[in-house]
Amino acid sequence: MSLIDLLFGKKTKTAEVARDRLQIIIAQERVKAQGPDYLPTLQKELLEVLSKYVHVSMDDIRISQERQDGVDMLELNITLPEQKKV
Amino acid sequence: MSLIDLLFGKKTKTAEVARDRLQIIIAQERVKAQGPDYLPTLQKELLEVLSKYVHVSMDDIRISQERQDGVDMLELNITLPEQKKV
Repeated sequence: MSLIDLLFGKKTKTAEVARDRLQIIIAQERVKAQGPDYLPTLQKELLEVLSKYVHVSMDDIRISQERQDGVDMLELNITLPEQKKV
Repeated sequence: MSLIDLLFGKKTKTAEVARDRLQIIIAQERVKAQGPDYLPTLQKELLEVLSKYVHVSMDDIRISQERQDGVDMLELNITLPEQKKV
C-alpha cells in the first residue's frame, strides 16, 4: 500500500463532501529524544502561510497528533472553502 | 495499516542513518480539476519557513510528487543537519 492511498482516510466519493480538501502532514523522526522539536512552531507557521491563500476558519481545520516508534506526526486536515464564482 | 507506519518509508534502524529526519506531505484533493493549485506555492513557502529553523541545503531535501485519483501529493523528505554541541 502506498502513502497516497492512505491520505484523506477512506475515500468518500459522495456528493456531500464535494469540496476541495488539503492535507498537511509533518512527521519528525528524532534519533535522540532531546533534539529540537519543530512541530509546534511549524504548525503555527504553516497555518499562517495557508491563511494567505485561502480563507479557512479554525472550524475547517482538524488537527491530530500521533507518536509512534520515535516518530512524531502532526496531521492537518483542511476543508477548503467553496470557490466563489467570478 | 496506519499513516504513521508508512512515513519515512521502510524504517531503517542502522547507525548510518542516525540523523533526525523531517517529512512534510502536502496533499490536495480537488473536486474540479480547474480549482486553484496551491502545491507549487506552498512548497516554496514551506522551504522558506523551514530554512528559518534549520540550515538545510537542497541536497538534503528529496522532493517527490505523485498524482492518483484526483489527489495531488507532494512529499518532502529532509535529512536534518547534525546538532552542533553547544
